[in-house]
Amino acid sequence: MSRWEPGARERLVVAAVDLFTEQGYDATTVAQIAERAGVTKSTFFRHFPDKRELLVAGQETLSRLLAEGIADAPGDASPLEAVAAGLERASAAMGPGSRELAPRLKAAVAASTELQERDTLKTVSLAAAMTTALVARGVPDPTAALAGELGVLAFKRGYAAWAGDDRGAENELAGYALAALDELRAASASLG
Amino acid sequence: MSRWEPGARERLVVAAVDLFTEQGYDATTVAQIAERAGVTKSTFFRHFPDKRELLVAGQETLSRLLAEGIADAPGDASPLEAVAAGLERASAAMGPGSRELAPRLKAAVAASTELQERDTLKTVSLAAAMTTALVARGVPDPTAALAGELGVLAFKRGYAAWAGDDRGAENELAGYALAALDELRAASASLG
Repeated sequence: MSRWEPGARERLVVAAVDLFTEQGYDATTVAQIAERAGVTKSTFFRHFPDKRELLVAGQETLSRLLAEGIADAPGDASPLEAVAAGLERASAAMGPGSRELAPRLKAAVAASTELQERDTLKTVSLAAAMTTALVARGVPDPTAALAGELGVLAFKRGYAAWAGDDRGAENELAGYALAALDELRAASASLG
Repeated sequence: MSRWEPGARERLVVAAVDLFTEQGYDATTVAQIAERAGVTKSTFFRHFPDKRELLVAGQETLSRLLAEGIADAPGDASPLEAVAAGLERASAAMGPGSRELAPRLKAAVAASTELQERDTLKTVSLAAAMTTALVARGVPDPTAALAGELGVLAFKRGYAAWAGDDRGAENELAGYALAALDELRAASASLG
C-alpha cells in the first residue's frame, strides 16, 4: 500500500509480496527479493533497511497523506468532511499498481502471523495520524478519536471493495473510500 | 488486564509487570518472574506457556466477557445498549487488583515496543470480538463494525479515567466505561 513508482522500488515490493505468498514471510531473504526484482542487494538497501520496513514504508506514506489532506481541508469543513479530504489525498497515491498487488498482498498477509500483526499495527497508526490531524484543526478529543476510527474503517472497507470489484481497474480508490465513509456515517444514525 | 484471582496467578502477573517496568520486557525471564512471585517455574508454566502469553491471557478473558455481555443483552437492545452490556460484563471482572496494577502496567508498556505492539493488537481483537457478537445478534455489518470500535474506545477511555482518578479505588470500572460510551455517543452527533 505504498506509492507505486515505476522502477526498482516497485519491483522490489512486488517481488517481496510474491515471495512472501509463495514461501512465507519468515523464509524469504533480502537476497531472494533482490534477485526476483532483478536488482542487487545494495539497491534493496538503498530503498529499505530490511524486509519488514519494506511494508512499513507504505504505511508512513499513507499516514502522512491522510494527515495532510485533513490539514488542508477548508477551515469550515466538518470533522467527517476533513476525513473525506484525507481519504481522497491518500487514495490518489494508490493507482493501478496498488490494485494489481492487492490480491497477492492479501494472500501473503493471510499466510503470515507476523504480517497480520504488522497489518493490524498499520491500521492503528493510520487512525492515530487522522485523530492527531483532526485535533490540530481544533476538533475536540472524543469527536476526533471517533472520526479517526471512522476514517480507517472507511479506508479499509473502500480498499477491499476496490480490490474486489472487477471494474476496479477502471475506477479510482477514492470513490470507494468515500462511499464507505458515507455508509458508515449513515450507520452511525442507527447505533441507538 | 486479566481477572485477578488471589493466589499464584495474580502474584505472577504483578511480579511480571514490576519486572518489565524495572528492567524491560526483553530482559525479564520466566525464572525471575517466578522467583519474584515466590513460586516455582513449574507453577508459572501451569498458568502460562510463556511470558508473552501472561499478557495475552487477560485479553482473551476480556474478549470473551465483552462478547457474552453483548449476547446476553435483551433482544430489543440497540447496538450501543448491547455494547454497554458487554462493557459492564467485562468491567465486573476488573476489580481493585486491576486498578492497583494499572500505573505499573502503563509504565511497562511505555518502556517496551513489544508490549506496545501487544497492547495495540489487544485493542483490535477486542473490537473484533464485539463486532462479531453484534453481527450474531443481527446487527448489520457497517453498524456492527462501528459499534465495536466505539465499544473499544469507550473501554480504553473508561479504563484510563478509572486508573487516573484518585477516587477510582472506591468506584467500579463499569461507571467510567459507560460514561465514556455516553460521551462518544454524544460526539457522534457532531461528526458532520
